[in-house]
Amino acid sequence: MASLVMDDFHFSPIGYVESCFKQKFAIPRQPGLAPHAKATIKLTENFTPETVDGLELSTHIWVQFVFHQTMEEGWSPRVRPPRLGGNRKMGVFATRSTHRPNPIGMSVVTLDGIDVGGNNVRLHVSGVDLLDGTPVLDIKPYLPYVDSVRTASNKLALMAPSLLVVKFTDKAMGQIESMQQGQDTDLLALISEILAQDPRPAYQKMDEKRTYGVTLLDFELKWRYFIHGEEASVEVLELIPHG
Amino acid sequence: MASLVMDDFHFSPIGYVESCFKQKFAIPRQPGLAPHAKATIKLTENFTPETVDGLELSTHIWVQFVFHQTMEEGWSPRVRPPRLGGNRKMGVFATRSTHRPNPIGMSVVTLDGIDVGGNNVRLHVSGVDLLDGTPVLDIKPYLPYVDSVRTASNKLALMAPSLLVVKFTDKAMGQIESMQQGQDTDLLALISEILAQDPRPAYQKMDEKRTYGVTLLDFELKWRYFIHGEEASVEVLELIPHG
Repeated sequence: MASLVMDDFHFSPIGYVESCFKQKFAIPRQPGLAPHAKATIKLTENFTPETVDGLELSTHIWVQFVFHQTMEEGWSPRVRPPRLGGNRKMGVFATRSTHRPNPIGMSVVTLDGIDVGGNNVRLHVSGVDLLDGTPVLDIKPYLPYVDSVRTASNKLALMAPSLLVVKFTDKAMGQIESMQQGQDTDLLALISEILAQDPRPAYQKMDEKRTYGVTLLDFELKWRYFIHGEEASVEVLELIPHG
Repeated sequence: MASLVMDDFHFSPIGYVESCFKQKFAIPRQPGLAPHAKATIKLTENFTPETVDGLELSTHIWVQFVFHQTMEEGWSPRVRPPRLGGNRKMGVFATRSTHRPNPIGMSVVTLDGIDVGGNNVRLHVSGVDLLDGTPVLDIKPYLPYVDSVRTASNKLALMAPSLLVVKFTDKAMGQIESMQQGQDTDLLALISEILAQDPRPAYQKMDEKRTYGVTLLDFELKWRYFIHGEEASVEVLELIPHG
């Protein structure tokens, strides 16, 4: 053991995330669950194109980042993971909760492209679960022979919830069609992926009378739930452009 | 984008690593390459047994940590990854180099057991590439459905070096046999795993006349190389117990 006790470390972001997700609510609970969710990681001006030379050899990258929006809220020794229906408490280190002693997240995302023009290197990524404005601490290549552990298992994964069917009103379909023009993201796919996973906290009762909403890209997405016996579905009501 | 610019984050370790690796030299270049390499992560007293409740459901865990020994050395925009024979330079973010703008490492390791007796929670892990004394920032469960990306590839992985044959002198075999008693780690397996990967820096010429050494557990390991045409092998000479 080193004789020097190192008990305080300072880190500065290497860049920030520009994401389709403007609010924590409705962000997929893990990366990869919404393949059409795109983001750009904009490195600060300190980081020249040569710092990412060779990164294009990787199809996927690790993003290490700060859970900046929830960090002031602190953490609890035990949390209720949403995937467990909010019924079981688990130790914070046994979960991927955003509320952690050191609020550092890690997400594997698809690397779609690298843009080295201009003053800032930009990494175009998808399958993200990253909030807009997220400070990024590090980027690493995903190495399948190291990071993809064939023998690994996690008993909690067996309890994953099933996906909801997502329907669209005629109004919503028309809006998506017209808003799709000039839009880089496949809106129909992205909205379906996000709502199929049911963004509501699991401990919250599904309310058929309520209209739910969240800001996504540059619009407000509105939807409601239908309960049919043991099954539930989602209906997208409308998309309200901002500003 | 949040209006608040967050450009400095402080993190304190949640614990420290007690590892068989006492020097950076001869540490496997990635986790999992030496399955018999064991370590214990000792959490600080702030972290009660309930913080790891449910972690036993995971066969593997992520350790996020600080590259404490090399952090004072800073970083360069381009580095020579050892797996590429030291011949090709890559951008720092395209590698898993320990010399990074924010020196945060992440390793997936096998979780062998959790010990909640005493004042400190201890996680027993193996397949480590962690230096003794490493400050740990976070522990997370490895989630195969998220972290194991089937579609990922990395073109560099194709250029992985082959393993060396490891032989032992009679003297070394006798020492291993007597030192194995009361030792939790399989010494023969551990030494074979470490030396088969050839810990020398790739840019260094293999020197048949030289005796190489490194501290491992509580002994000094000594070995040399033999070159036969295009092939090379390693011979373990002796193990010298410390103090």
